[in-house]
Amino acid sequence: MTTVENGVNVQALLDARTVLKDAPEAAQFTWRASSKWQHGVHSTTRIQQFFGLGQEQSHKTEAVFDADHPAVFAAEDNGITPIEYLLVGLASCLTAGVASVAQNRGIQLRSVESVVEGQHDIRGILGVDSDVRNGFNDIKVTFNIDADASQQEIEALVAQSQKRSAVFDALTNPTNVTVEVA
Amino acid sequence: MTTVENGVNVQALLDARTVLKDAPEAAQFTWRASSKWQHGVHSTTRIQQFFGLGQEQSHKTEAVFDADHPAVFAAEDNGITPIEYLLVGLASCLTAGVASVAQNRGIQLRSVESVVEGQHDIRGILGVDSDVRNGFNDIKVTFNIDADASQQEIEALVAQSQKRSAVFDALTNPTNVTVEVA
Repeated sequence: MTTVENGVNVQALLDARTVLKDAPEAAQFTWRASSKWQHGVHSTTRIQQFFGLGQEQSHKTEAVFDADHPAVFAAEDNGITPIEYLLVGLASCLTAGVASVAQNRGIQLRSVESVVEGQHDIRGILGVDSDVRNGFNDIKVTFNIDADASQQEIEALVAQSQKRSAVFDALTNPTNVTVEVA
Repeated sequence: MTTVENGVNVQALLDARTVLKDAPEAAQFTWRASSKWQHGVHSTTRIQQFFGLGQEQSHKTEAVFDADHPAVFAAEDNGITPIEYLLVGLASCLTAGVASVAQNRGIQLRSVESVVEGQHDIRGILGVDSDVRNGFNDIKVTFNIDADASQQEIEALVAQSQKRSAVFDALTNPTNVTVEVA
């Protein structure tokens, strides 16, 4: 039995695994965002409702996010750029995984920090060179973790988090995206 | 000459395209996020500095984002889930593209709204079934656009935005992600 306290309810996750094994339809989630153009390249995106466990669900509050381009792109910088939101998702997903795996393995965490850096050649989006892709060329994540564990155990935590990360998968493997006009 | 006003400085973008054609090193950007574990699967990610045009740059303010898991995952719902941040990035990137392309084509926009839905089978991240991927199964974006343009012109706007979108590329094609422990 683990006596560590990282704040993750691992038992609930293990129970969910058991339940969803026999109820795959309950495991089908739909995450949703609603976006509204403001002016220029500034937009506001809202998230609250989602679907899962067979019914509509709701976050306890609505979250609102501004995106824009910075002044060096001749825009007003009313929010971070859209592509930076991918780094927020990646950092937070891997961090949640580290905490969950640590709890499951009985490792007490004291601090988990990470820096995510995405290399981006903007000649792609500007249409300067069709051989340059629009997205990131590559992404590097560097973790700094203080825990009651050896360096090897910490590296194994991070490796297992990566293996189970939804966002790591979404960025390293292709997803089908359909874009339609109503 | 276009007389429409969508708030996008298209001339600056066309000028940047010309300048960066002969200065590819200035087009190399690095976007950065710094994340800190709070408790459970709750983390806080900050974004302000980035590198581009050959030097350090800064957003005018620091942006701070909380991520957590919802109550149905036995967590505290102190922010949206990490994977939802990808939908924020996708919606805002395609919307910025629609505004930019419309400005370049002389189309006056009145409103641009979109809903993004990501299908996610959570049996992957829970380790219920190794044939189920961790990330989204697929993503659908539906635009609702009011503009001085035909339905065909509006569909062409959205198609061109998709073709030049950094986030659309990042989600539909693989990116190399390296994760290290300091």
